[in-house]
Amino acid sequence: MIAGERSDGDIISNIWLGLLALQHRGQEACGIYTLDGKRFHHRKQLGLIEKFEKYNYLSGKLGIGHVRYSTVGRPANRETESDEVRIEDFAQPYFSDRPRGGIALCHNGNLVNFATLCADLQSEGNFLTATCDAEVILKILAEALARDSDLERAVQLCMRKFEGSYSVVALTGTGEVIGFRDPHGFRPLCFGENEDLLLFASESAALDINGIHEISNVKPGELVIAQKGKKLIRKQLITQQAHAHCMFEYVYFSRPDSTIDEHDVYSVRIKLGRNLARTYKSHADVIVAVPDTARPAAEGISMETGIPVLEGLIKNRYIGRTFIMPTQDGRDNAVALKLNVVHTVVHKKDVLLVDDSIVRGTTMRKIVGLLKAAGAARVELWITCPPIKSPCFYGIDMASHAELVASDSSIDEIRLAIGADELCYQTIEGLLDAIGFTRNETCLACLTGRYPTPLAQKLADEMRGKEIDGQIRYWEAHQ
Amino acid sequence: MIAGERSDGDIISNIWLGLLALQHRGQEACGIYTLDGKRFHHRKQLGLIEKFEKYNYLSGKLGIGHVRYSTVGRPANRETESDEVRIEDFAQPYFSDRPRGGIALCHNGNLVNFATLCADLQSEGNFLTATCDAEVILKILAEALARDSDLERAVQLCMRKFEGSYSVVALTGTGEVIGFRDPHGFRPLCFGENEDLLLFASESAALDINGIHEISNVKPGELVIAQKGKKLIRKQLITQQAHAHCMFEYVYFSRPDSTIDEHDVYSVRIKLGRNLARTYKSHADVIVAVPDTARPAAEGISMETGIPVLEGLIKNRYIGRTFIMPTQDGRDNAVALKLNVVHTVVHKKDVLLVDDSIVRGTTMRKIVGLLKAAGAARVELWITCPPIKSPCFYGIDMASHAELVASDSSIDEIRLAIGADELCYQTIEGLLDAIGFTRNETCLACLTGRYPTPLAQKLADEMRGKEIDGQIRYWEAHQ
Amino acid sequence: MIAGERSDGDIISNIWLGLLALQHRGQEACGIYTLDGKRFHHRKQLGLIEKFEKYNYLSGKLGIGHVRYSTVGRPANRETESDEVRIEDFAQPYFSDRPRGGIALCHNGNLVNFATLCADLQSEGNFLTATCDAEVILKILAEALARDSDLERAVQLCMRKFEGSYSVVALTGTGEVIGFRDPHGFRPLCFGENEDLLLFASESAALDINGIHEISNVKPGELVIAQKGKKLIRKQLITQQAHAHCMFEYVYFSRPDSTIDEHDVYSVRIKLGRNLARTYKSHADVIVAVPDTARPAAEGISMETGIPVLEGLIKNRYIGRTFIMPTQDGRDNAVALKLNVVHTVVHKKDVLLVDDSIVRGTTMRKIVGLLKAAGAARVELWITCPPIKSPCFYGIDMASHAELVASDSSIDEIRLAIGADELCYQTIEGLLDAIGFTRNETCLACLTGRYPTPLAQKLADEMRGKEIDGQIRYWEAHQ
Amino acid sequence: MIAGERSDGDIISNIWLGLLALQHRGQEACGIYTLDGKRFHHRKQLGLIEKFEKYNYLSGKLGIGHVRYSTVGRPANRETESDEVRIEDFAQPYFSDRPRGGIALCHNGNLVNFATLCADLQSEGNFLTATCDAEVILKILAEALARDSDLERAVQLCMRKFEGSYSVVALTGTGEVIGFRDPHGFRPLCFGENEDLLLFASESAALDINGIHEISNVKPGELVIAQKGKKLIRKQLITQQAHAHCMFEYVYFSRPDSTIDEHDVYSVRIKLGRNLARTYKSHADVIVAVPDTARPAAEGISMETGIPVLEGLIKNRYIGRTFIMPTQDGRDNAVALKLNVVHTVVHKKDVLLVDDSIVRGTTMRKIVGLLKAAGAARVELWITCPPIKSPCFYGIDMASHAELVASDSSIDEIRLAIGADELCYQTIEGLLDAIGFTRNETCLACLTGRYPTPLAQKLADEMRGKEIDGQIRYWEAHQ
Repeated sequence: MIAGERSDGDIISNIWLGLLALQHRGQEACGIYTLDGKRFHHRKQLGLIEKFEKYNYLSGKLGIGHVRYSTVGRPANRETESDEVRIEDFAQPYFSDRPRGGIALCHNGNLVNFATLCADLQSEGNFLTATCDAEVILKILAEALARDSDLERAVQLCMRKFEGSYSVVALTGTGEVIGFRDPHGFRPLCFGENEDLLLFASESAALDINGIHEISNVKPGELVIAQKGKKLIRKQLITQQAHAHCMFEYVYFSRPDSTIDEHDVYSVRIKLGRNLARTYKSHADVIVAVPDTARPAAEGISMETGIPVLEGLIKNRYIGRTFIMPTQDGRDNAVALKLNVVHTVVHKKDVLLVDDSIVRGTTMRKIVGLLKAAGAARVELWITCPPIKSPCFYGIDMASHAELVASDSSIDEIRLAIGADELCYQTIEGLLDAIGFTRNETCLACLTGRYPTPLAQKLADEMRGKEIDGQIRYWEAHQ
Repeated sequence: MIAGERSDGDIISNIWLGLLALQHRGQEACGIYTLDGKRFHHRKQLGLIEKFEKYNYLSGKLGIGHVRYSTVGRPANRETESDEVRIEDFAQPYFSDRPRGGIALCHNGNLVNFATLCADLQSEGNFLTATCDAEVILKILAEALARDSDLERAVQLCMRKFEGSYSVVALTGTGEVIGFRDPHGFRPLCFGENEDLLLFASESAALDINGIHEISNVKPGELVIAQKGKKLIRKQLITQQAHAHCMFEYVYFSRPDSTIDEHDVYSVRIKLGRNLARTYKSHADVIVAVPDTARPAAEGISMETGIPVLEGLIKNRYIGRTFIMPTQDGRDNAVALKLNVVHTVVHKKDVLLVDDSIVRGTTMRKIVGLLKAAGAARVELWITCPPIKSPCFYGIDMASHAELVASDSSIDEIRLAIGADELCYQTIEGLLDAIGFTRNETCLACLTGRYPTPLAQKLADEMRGKEIDGQIRYWEAHQ
Repeated sequence: MIAGERSDGDIISNIWLGLLALQHRGQEACGIYTLDGKRFHHRKQLGLIEKFEKYNYLSGKLGIGHVRYSTVGRPANRETESDEVRIEDFAQPYFSDRPRGGIALCHNGNLVNFATLCADLQSEGNFLTATCDAEVILKILAEALARDSDLERAVQLCMRKFEGSYSVVALTGTGEVIGFRDPHGFRPLCFGENEDLLLFASESAALDINGIHEISNVKPGELVIAQKGKKLIRKQLITQQAHAHCMFEYVYFSRPDSTIDEHDVYSVRIKLGRNLARTYKSHADVIVAVPDTARPAAEGISMETGIPVLEGLIKNRYIGRTFIMPTQDGRDNAVALKLNVVHTVVHKKDVLLVDDSIVRGTTMRKIVGLLKAAGAARVELWITCPPIKSPCFYGIDMASHAELVASDSSIDEIRLAIGADELCYQTIEGLLDAIGFTRNETCLACLTGRYPTPLAQKLADEMRGKEIDGQIRYWEAHQ
Repeated sequence: MIAGERSDGDIISNIWLGLLALQHRGQEACGIYTLDGKRFHHRKQLGLIEKFEKYNYLSGKLGIGHVRYSTVGRPANRETESDEVRIEDFAQPYFSDRPRGGIALCHNGNLVNFATLCADLQSEGNFLTATCDAEVILKILAEALARDSDLERAVQLCMRKFEGSYSVVALTGTGEVIGFRDPHGFRPLCFGENEDLLLFASESAALDINGIHEISNVKPGELVIAQKGKKLIRKQLITQQAHAHCMFEYVYFSRPDSTIDEHDVYSVRIKLGRNLARTYKSHADVIVAVPDTARPAAEGISMETGIPVLEGLIKNRYIGRTFIMPTQDGRDNAVALKLNVVHTVVHKKDVLLVDDSIVRGTTMRKIVGLLKAAGAARVELWITCPPIKSPCFYGIDMASHAELVASDSSIDEIRLAIGADELCYQTIEGLLDAIGFTRNETCLACLTGRYPTPLAQKLADEMRGKEIDGQIRYWEAHQ
């Protein structure tokens, strides 16, 4: 997500460039609101921002945009609705037509007490379009502002009501751009300014591409109110609690060329590789990274071990992430189509295969199988993240972690299931050392089962002992 | 527009049938909201209801739908927006997400004090999506209900604020279907019920097609609140003023098989023909109606005169109303393409040509030209409506009356411009006799320049003396 | 279909106007080829010519176009193909890339010996894209011309090979526009010329709209070769046999304002009404035509009887011909939606209902039911065409005549099935008298079972005694 | 392109998988024909095979498919045509409806004497749909086969008529799959078979993904005729001339995991890096490859020099190859958007940048600029291909080589224009050593200006001395 103001012309090209730079954070849909004088314009579309149309419609010096990731927020009867209907109702930004002449708002994260907040809103006579926490945040904020027009008090009220992760940007009809972040600071939120342009965004890369190189971070529990040409207002609304930066932003989610809360992602990933190589020994002939995320870690291992990195696996550049093969033949070959093995690299070689994490283990089993079919003598699998054992309630999509193989299997059981000759996971110490935060400053809930907020801990405790397969459904039912 | 509740299943097919029956009232777009338990579903589309897609999405026993006519309500920068964007924001029904769990509302008519009402809403911090009076009606009603939950008091407040014509239906998240009508009753609004189904609609034909044959009319100044299975509530909220039924509903706008406020449209139109034949003499060989509206009047003339009605003009069934020829050759032939002359009918004949009204006179000039080119010896033109001289502020689209030829020309000047050998207009007495209302019960503003409401009269008086060509622009500027 | 040449610019607008005028002959698809110097351009689309896009692409002074009616010509596996694929392969004009620099061709009619001609082509190594006789005509003509470049001899060879009805127009890469017609002249084909424009077309209305008012007819068995600026070549290639003008062109298929082989369609239809009134007696109060085809006949009856014609049935102008209701409620109401009854016209009246023909009888039963439900005291049904008892092998779509109610039922049985109080069919004498051709000059095969060509007679004889329901399938199996 | 037969079911999934594997050879459009008994089915679409729709329509055990690369073959008036029209006419495979029950054919390469062949066809009365040499090949082959049904003689006749590169696969209505290759063997063409499946394809990867691992190559001048279950026929139709394998297939065009004429592409690219490192010295701190093609060469350099390879440049995975930024701001940032610099990798470092080739030099100048802006102390640029100085007449798209910077500039001038601190090109010896063919077996025309065929040499000689900017236009004018 991105929001901002431009002093010398329409902001749409900046919003658009920023969303292109943030596309890895969501590919399902994109939405943009602009404010031209007192008139809002908007457009939402399915798919990538690259395909965004009717661009010229969105005039105005202020703007806000979002790329949608999660599949959360679709209504119950999803089979009968059309995509076109859904996109208008379920893609961010959300919009309230009052007060302040309208508010457009985006949010990144997840409210743990979403169900309670929804029930309260409904009992007060509100209809909720989506089942999306950004809509809930907007309605509660708008209602607070309609009653008391002071922005700081309204946002403070929100922070007191909400439990969970929320990095929020919003645009008001009276011309303020605001950003605020939950007191634990789970998800990133940065901002910056140059002569003509002021921007908030999820990652620094979105400011970088727009020529803003001086980056500040919204602090956990802080509200920032900005208007081009006026002095920036920064207010710490909630006494800072122990921070809880999400480790997965560094391991997988953020761009390698972003700097998140002043820690550089690419360097973290090289160090993840180095720390693995300092923990485990290898006699492999060649290091092969699963493209693209694991490449810097592979280079880090190479630096420590001297083993060369070669492209034993090459990604098919022409197959989209969400692509589903139309035939059974295709589906059987899906991994083989998306990843080509280069035979000469692995044939009769001991291969050190590097990846960032293991979720269900099914894809990894196919990759190991491809390498062996191409004649690899031995496959050691090194993983840059420790085993993921518990669900995330703070915004990393659980749909893709529905069957966390590590939650109830030993490492050797996982290794056998995958068919690797060896399996080496990062240690939590190696992870923290690479990221550069202390254990107290980092959210490790998915690794340790210890959650920084009470309701999340309560939900997780209630799940314990239940089938892992049922956990998510349990959690969803309690949403 | 149509709204209602069905006790034994989804109402969508009834809404859809009703809109098909009301398609003549608007072809630009259509929109439907349904209410399924506490969840609203909706869909809006450009074009005819025949093409309405994703029908199955709209589940629920309550529903409301609209076919859009007017081109009023588009925002200023219409050139850069896409149709898809517009349709979501500018087609009715409008929706407010609070109070009562949401309200979906449609309106037929025109608020004369629209500009003042908009300015008030904006100064209170509201953003107006469209420039459409239905949105304004909804926002004022929703705000009133949020403050005081009594429906009757809220609607009464609206009636006190609004000047102009408004027939309104709405659906609340708590399950009420309501209908109310301005104190003059300009536009029609009827309702009815059978065992399984309860419906409000603009015209009786929409109830008829749904098997409801007992028709009641919402009275001017009345509110009707309905819930299937509960007793109907009818409240006269404003002391009835002199009614002002729109004469143009009978002359042109309504379906010939509808009954409006208990007066049957087809019979009115036959009598319009009879009254013409009682006023003027003709020695024509053949009566030719401009299809389709003028046919019953042609039959009426034939009954009085004994002159046969023949199809000298046939409509091309395959050309849509809004169709624009892609080439200059096509445009030059546009009238000829839409209306075929049957040569044998008119060749060397004295033709009595009948139509309902003359607006600019350009189309009529082309039709007369086509008849003469086909060899008609003489063309008498009889018009079933008296000369239209003044703009309508109550909901008949002024875009199509932008240059009212009758406002500053004598009948003989019009005849000459059109190229007819004779031109006979209906008298106001003949019109009132055919409709069956007294002069006091009928709005004749466009014929007489005397308006039933003060602001409309003030606007019209200010226009007097200005160029007719500038009248509409003047009025639009004051909106 | 239409084809021609324009001397002073691109012909596309003339082709397009002509197809608009011919739209009643087919609404499924449209196709146009133009010739610009030596380059052909083309475009085919589903649906009405009104929606034809990418118009500007089709440059050139020569052109040919077609509107597709029949559902014949779709390949076997129609369920798995897409409309987009079909349209390119199965809509006319067809194109051969040799000889003469390419030939684009359209045809109207039906080849009775189609199956034999296909088998011959396939055994010679040709792949047939469609199962359409226009493709077969084109391939045989192109092959003949590739062997012997003389146009007259090539077309004569075709005429000797083909049995059935075929009115053909074609455009060659060397700039000739040609038209030829089978020796019986089943289907119409006319042509004409003014200073700038030369056109062939199926009906005179397509020339009329293009400003060509001097109309000639291609004679049965004749070839006409035209090039703007050169002398027209007319060659009688086959000794004229007894003509067999299709009576259904006058009764139903052609436009009322066309003149077919010098007989004016509107006058024929009035006379069909007059002849009915001279044959049968009526004491009805009101004549009601089923719109739109039956209206002139209703006027004809009125002229003879003095009974007034009123619009008891009004067509919904906003429902397309091919429209299918999306719900069961809709389908049950389909006829009621397409035809509105005007209650005041028929209530407590004796109604004389007029229509052109009865096919299955199901629609007519619903219409009679609607009139009775609206209170009609009595319904006499008069049909302007004699009973249709046998299939047509000459190009009137049998799909819509699949269950010819008259083939095995007495008139009284039909009347009972329909629910009319009386049923009066035109006599064959009344029909011939109205059209103005002798029995020898007219194809009455569908009425009499006597076919003008031997293979058609043989097919019909083989069918005799079989279930009427199986006739079409039998015939299709023998194709 | 790909073609083949499957014995145990529909081949479409194999054709589709193969085209996915060959997508790098063309992204503009894709087309597939299948043969089901005697019926051909086909579909052509713009864009990637990933999006290919209506898949199920294409039944049959035999099939042929193509992905379109070149922009050659569009007609003159491209601005007025629609994409939908073009795709049907201008995407391969091409189809002739005779002889042998139809022939579908694809070709990869370029006919140098295309203009002469076209003129001959036109003078014989043929209309050419496209300006594409595959259509010309098909028409000449079909005409030859119509006259003399012997396949070998017909293909031999083609080989005698054609000058240039052509790897051809075709499918006949009588069930043969054939492949043939020009006598120089410019472009690759391989085939193979397993129990159920027989396939021809441009690259081995397309057979590999379909489970065919035993790969043979069609020899230059050879015809291969295959029918599943019958013995393969291989005929050397033209005495083999000196081969002329295109060096650019190895350097850039083919997939890294393909084996082309028994030489493994990935190994060639590593060796290209090694040979550079044996030719030039570097003191860089880090090797950065321009993704994706240059990565193996970067690893090769690292193997020789010990300098680490790091990802200083990361490709944006969400921007398509053909994507054009909608705004000026976007276009200015286009390279920056497509390639992200990782600052920590290059900041204050001496960078050895590796890429495969330099065309105009403009993109390379921007990349060097990005690295310097990110703080790179020094940028050495190493190119794995020698300078490209002359146009290719054998099928590598000249549109992308329109301004060959190396044709008239010294290496130092290029270096200055690009802004690199050093510029090192591969030598021709280093290139040949890496590929593993002798100079006599390799086409080096674009490097040396010496062409293996006489007409190409003549065209190139005539161009000499003219402005390089005008060369392509000159060549196009002579086509």
